[in-house]
Amino acid sequence: MKLKQRLFTPGPTPLPEEVRLAQARQIIHHRGEEFARVFQEVRQGLKYVFQTGEEVLLLTASGTGAMEAVVANLFSSGDRVLVVRGGKFGERWGEIAAVFGLEVISLDIEWESAVNPDLIRKKLAKDSKIRAVFTQLVETSTGVVYDIEAVAKIVKETEAVLIVDAISGLGAQPLPTDRWGVDVVVGGSQKALMLPPGLAFVSLSPKAWRLGENSALPRYYWDFKKAKKAQEKNQTPYTPAVSLICALRESLKLLKEEGWENVLARHAKLAQATRKAVLALGLKVFSKVPSNVATAIEVPSGIDPKKLRKIMRDEYGVDVAGGQAQLAGKIIRIAHLGWMDASDMIVVLSSLEMSLSKLGYPVKLGKGLAAAEEILGE
Amino acid sequence: MKLKQRLFTPGPTPLPEEVRLAQARQIIHHRGEEFARVFQEVRQGLKYVFQTGEEVLLLTASGTGAMEAVVANLFSSGDRVLVVRGGKFGERWGEIAAVFGLEVISLDIEWESAVNPDLIRKKLAKDSKIRAVFTQLVETSTGVVYDIEAVAKIVKETEAVLIVDAISGLGAQPLPTDRWGVDVVVGGSQKALMLPPGLAFVSLSPKAWRLGENSALPRYYWDFKKAKKAQEKNQTPYTPAVSLICALRESLKLLKEEGWENVLARHAKLAQATRKAVLALGLKVFSKVPSNVATAIEVPSGIDPKKLRKIMRDEYGVDVAGGQAQLAGKIIRIAHLGWMDASDMIVVLSSLEMSLSKLGYPVKLGKGLAAAEEILGE
Repeated sequence: MKLKQRLFTPGPTPLPEEVRLAQARQIIHHRGEEFARVFQEVRQGLKYVFQTGEEVLLLTASGTGAMEAVVANLFSSGDRVLVVRGGKFGERWGEIAAVFGLEVISLDIEWESAVNPDLIRKKLAKDSKIRAVFTQLVETSTGVVYDIEAVAKIVKETEAVLIVDAISGLGAQPLPTDRWGVDVVVGGSQKALMLPPGLAFVSLSPKAWRLGENSALPRYYWDFKKAKKAQEKNQTPYTPAVSLICALRESLKLLKEEGWENVLARHAKLAQATRKAVLALGLKVFSKVPSNVATAIEVPSGIDPKKLRKIMRDEYGVDVAGGQAQLAGKIIRIAHLGWMDASDMIVVLSSLEMSLSKLGYPVKLGKGLAAAEEILGE
Repeated sequence: MKLKQRLFTPGPTPLPEEVRLAQARQIIHHRGEEFARVFQEVRQGLKYVFQTGEEVLLLTASGTGAMEAVVANLFSSGDRVLVVRGGKFGERWGEIAAVFGLEVISLDIEWESAVNPDLIRKKLAKDSKIRAVFTQLVETSTGVVYDIEAVAKIVKETEAVLIVDAISGLGAQPLPTDRWGVDVVVGGSQKALMLPPGLAFVSLSPKAWRLGENSALPRYYWDFKKAKKAQEKNQTPYTPAVSLICALRESLKLLKEEGWENVLARHAKLAQATRKAVLALGLKVFSKVPSNVATAIEVPSGIDPKKLRKIMRDEYGVDVAGGQAQLAGKIIRIAHLGWMDASDMIVVLSSLEMSLSKLGYPVKLGKGLAAAEEILGE
């Protein structure tokens, strides 16, 4: 039998049948009444998952496109910004800001660690010219989750805005946008929202909209004002990815049926079970503050992570992620993100046990699974 | 019975079953071997339809995003460019160029007319500082096709590059990129390529790549160099719209099976039949040089085009486009674009006849159809 394929990467994530079939529908026109009805539902659903009363802008682009759009809409060349860099995606914020001529102050942290909110407080207190703090909710490359609630409390007291890349974190970690007072949240389709990649989302607080009033950077396709104006008429300024938007309606329906609190709790439980299993196998979790997006595991010395992933993939059809940038060859990342349940985690953990054993690592078969079941069976 | 819906708009266009079902596949990872194989096939297919030996860059975005990307990659603030403005999309080139600080010289033409290549020759001869000519292959808003072969001959003799928005025209009108020497061609997925919207394509000549060497405009997501480097390894720099790319492989397969010359001939024939039918009904084709993308029809005085389109849609399930900008309320546009055949045109023309008749316009039922059949039956 051809091996069944199972994806445990932190995006793209597996698609529920409802989402897959919605894409297979015949196309509808983006200026017609049916699309307007779909889009109205989608707009409401996005507000629900972003936990905001503000309009959530939808862009036909990858998450990185939305990150660029945020920079292009809110700033001017020469603006000073603080960028938390604790992994590949923190670095990306810095790269985009630099490309657009912003003056970037980097707050570099060890890649296994979360940012200490006090460091942000000190930077902002010392320098009133900092217009924004850029950070992640979850730094996907390290599996670390940041304390955005604490960071938001600090930034709220200043003139600066807080900009959070929640591309991987949205749905896996709590992020009540309005309640915490997060000014800008960026999301992507191919994560907990259980969609293919191709759509990105941005919510903006009134404070963020005000900052944008003075922005002098060039933008056209990315123009947030045009997007907001069009969305209020259940349209988009340019032809959007219609089939993905129809699929988004289905995934938002599924998430509403489950209930957002339950979605978050499910991610937390699957992540906890994964960590317990990893520890039970004598392995080490790389992240000091591990997220519910993906568990980053330090590969024990003597084991080649590339070989480990290859065995998991070739023998068991299980696809996990490796390390990126400086973490290449050091970690593997098991995602528990999106359309995932207890049995999915049993599968990936089992393939991890069997593959480690094949590579000669002294693993007691079933020990990780037993630890996971303690949590999953609750 | 619920009315069958049929789309005759110049994008999005109907999807063949192969394309629809490809989107319904379970998602695959964009860094895996299977995706690399798919993407390699797609890269070859794009070269085939663009008729170029150069790499065709694939962007996860609408066509407008690719237009912005071209400006951001090739120019610097203050660069002087010539923009042909014969409709809404010519105006769009001008707007994007202006947003990015380019000095725009507009070549405004009547919206029913094609650009006279001699006017471009004169402008370029008079001003050696013009770095580029921006134009359309087909100006979708007016249905007019431009003589890009003649324009390319002129621009080739200068230092300027020729940039053609072929978003609607690609596949409907001949555009042998390398043979004619068109420096930049922009395409979109939701037209003759028979895909949903969400992907855009850009081919660049060596002359265009050289121009880009001196560009100082900010770009990150749009960066062509990064895209080219990644594509040569069958990857993309950022997570692309995987499900649309899998669907693109299927549509490119269909187009290859049909043969590109046959695709072009089919569009020409369907367009010719539509024009003949329109004339036989005593109506007027708006465009002086009508394209094979869509037939723009002047709505006779006394007939409200909104009402006409509403009857066609509500009574016969047939969706045609109205006029945009200054043409709103003046024309309707019947697209013969993408996955369309003779019987499709019979359907739309029949609904036009019946709807005109209902509105009291003196139409001899069947007369347009008879004229169309003369061509379609050949």
